[in-house]
Amino acid sequence: MQPVYIIGTGQTAVAEHWERTAGDLAREAFMAALGNIAPERVQALYVANALGSALQVQGQMGAAIATALGLQGIEASTIDAAGASGGVALRHAYLAVASGAYDLVAVVGVEKVTDVLDARLEAGLALAGDADWEGVHGATLTAQWAMLMRRYMHQYGYDAVDFAPFPVNAHANGAANPKALYRFATSVEKVRAAGMVADPLSLLDSSTVADGAAAVLVASAGLARELNAPLIRIAGSAVATDTLALHQRPDPPWLGAAARSAANALSSAGVGTGDVQAIELTDPHGIAATLGLEACGFAERGAGVQLAREGAIGVGGTAPLATGGGCKARGDTVGANGVFQIVELVRQLRGEAGKAQVANARVALAQCLGGIGATAATHILVAE
Amino acid sequence: MQPVYIIGTGQTAVAEHWERTAGDLAREAFMAALGNIAPERVQALYVANALGSALQVQGQMGAAIATALGLQGIEASTIDAAGASGGVALRHAYLAVASGAYDLVAVVGVEKVTDVLDARLEAGLALAGDADWEGVHGATLTAQWAMLMRRYMHQYGYDAVDFAPFPVNAHANGAANPKALYRFATSVEKVRAAGMVADPLSLLDSSTVADGAAAVLVASAGLARELNAPLIRIAGSAVATDTLALHQRPDPPWLGAAARSAANALSSAGVGTGDVQAIELTDPHGIAATLGLEACGFAERGAGVQLAREGAIGVGGTAPLATGGGCKARGDTVGANGVFQIVELVRQLRGEAGKAQVANARVALAQCLGGIGATAATHILVAE
Repeated sequence: MQPVYIIGTGQTAVAEHWERTAGDLAREAFMAALGNIAPERVQALYVANALGSALQVQGQMGAAIATALGLQGIEASTIDAAGASGGVALRHAYLAVASGAYDLVAVVGVEKVTDVLDARLEAGLALAGDADWEGVHGATLTAQWAMLMRRYMHQYGYDAVDFAPFPVNAHANGAANPKALYRFATSVEKVRAAGMVADPLSLLDSSTVADGAAAVLVASAGLARELNAPLIRIAGSAVATDTLALHQRPDPPWLGAAARSAANALSSAGVGTGDVQAIELTDPHGIAATLGLEACGFAERGAGVQLAREGAIGVGGTAPLATGGGCKARGDTVGANGVFQIVELVRQLRGEAGKAQVANARVALAQCLGGIGATAATHILVAE
Repeated sequence: MQPVYIIGTGQTAVAEHWERTAGDLAREAFMAALGNIAPERVQALYVANALGSALQVQGQMGAAIATALGLQGIEASTIDAAGASGGVALRHAYLAVASGAYDLVAVVGVEKVTDVLDARLEAGLALAGDADWEGVHGATLTAQWAMLMRRYMHQYGYDAVDFAPFPVNAHANGAANPKALYRFATSVEKVRAAGMVADPLSLLDSSTVADGAAAVLVASAGLARELNAPLIRIAGSAVATDTLALHQRPDPPWLGAAARSAANALSSAGVGTGDVQAIELTDPHGIAATLGLEACGFAERGAGVQLAREGAIGVGGTAPLATGGGCKARGDTVGANGVFQIVELVRQLRGEAGKAQVANARVALAQCLGGIGATAATHILVAE
């Protein structure tokens, strides 16, 4: 397999973009990723999008976004794995370049969710769960994370307040990210005083879905050198799956697909969790971040919450998490999240993260989940 | 890039499978494709599916089908490009094996469309068009093909009856295919006497959407040799796009994406249209088959209809088309069509097509379209 590099990134602000189309958002992110590179050098486009069919009445988002970017004619397709779409699309781009078929593939994650009423949006988000066992009973993803949080608290003896450092960290970092949906700090007290969304998950421990697009350019070594791009290598790439329905898993608080994809990605990159200096996870709630940290191997089972309580997930800690604000503060763009994660990690590896910069970041891990981890995509990035 | 082979195929009957789930259909096709191969040797699964979100309330069809096949844990994802999904999923599998990442990838196309009422099904099918310019005005794909047929008749001086040999050929072949939805012959007279669906398209010149699943196993040369599988090589693979909206194309009866993907696939395979002995196209109507034949280079512009009138598209002709019945007689399984096409061509290249067998078939071409060709995927298969 040929080595594969990320040579450009771009993102829109995450917001309620009522006056802009999905194509318009995708174009802003793509143009930023291109920089000085001529658009006609892009040979293929993989679009990460989860809710185009449900909310945008569009089943060929690949072709639609190709046209919006002025790339019509090009190979383009749509990858849908709910919240894991961004990571899975990057995986397909990685394979296309690693095969030698292409020198330059664009991955664009785009989601446009705020121009429908809540009931329709909830129905769209429920596509990430099991329709027969979960959706039909009204068990939203938030409700399921809440149940996992209760189980975890019971199993390991924590209180809800123990999870509050996750949103506090995410908001602290989001406050420094001009593209974030929420650019204000919060506190443990505020998180627990906020209204309940699904007890024990409060409003301030729950992400908000919003519109946005992110883009990355995936290139061969030859092209990366020719363009004199900073060399950020995709050193590991893996996707794994689990059952959709939570009740079908023998041990629900263990995210098996997340664990498997992380182990495969770390192993193929030849690094361990101790080498990783910046982390992006699917973290709409503290419990999701906790289970993700444990599945990836950053903490033993039952000890993920400790990392947050001890400050290890902060920018100056040993496991800096959500340095761009994560799902909670940057905003939850569903199928685009996985691409936003890569944009943030490249920012870290290039030393361009300003107030949220991790000192000397050389190795980073991104993991995104579809639903409650039925699909998990993990990538390891290394600055060369 | 590593050479890539198809070493197993399977398909369900195309029918109204009211009592079976998508997972159940996928399993039947997958088990047939496996034959004696142990399922745990399959390393990744790419699911071609267009209407899971719209009709099956399922946004992670990749993970869902992986579980249904007993493969949970495996890398799996969903590829959605409307009617081109099957070919695009095969393209991703081809790249994954060509890269050396995997030795064995399964592609499963599955669609379950008959257990909803017509209005919802029509809304699902309309996802393949442009929502703002076409869907909102009620311009179905059938209506758009009808407009293209009118334009073509005007431009080249044909009558509607001139297109009837396409469904007649498809039904003649479908009658010999035990998996086909319609296993009866028809005639030019019957096609034109049938009720109008969208003038000048009659009921007997229009495909019927139905349920079904098809599976192919895509493997490295090493594995193909180890398993002693008949060597059918994917010699060419290409995807291209065009605008979604028909009115945005400078020359609507010219399917640009179809032409581009066919030219790229033929060129990378090192063969010409004269070498191809079996053809599968997206052929829900005679006009679609006509424009596909012209875009691929089997006929000059305006001369595609001649091939059918002269009998060239028959099993004994120079350009045998739809030997398994095509969309018209095998049945239109939307996102799964592209995988059914490959199953049929492998049957031809292995000499297993019975009454519909083309003598000494060595090279075959499959092309599937999303909507009116906004996405087009073309593959060239060669028997070694």
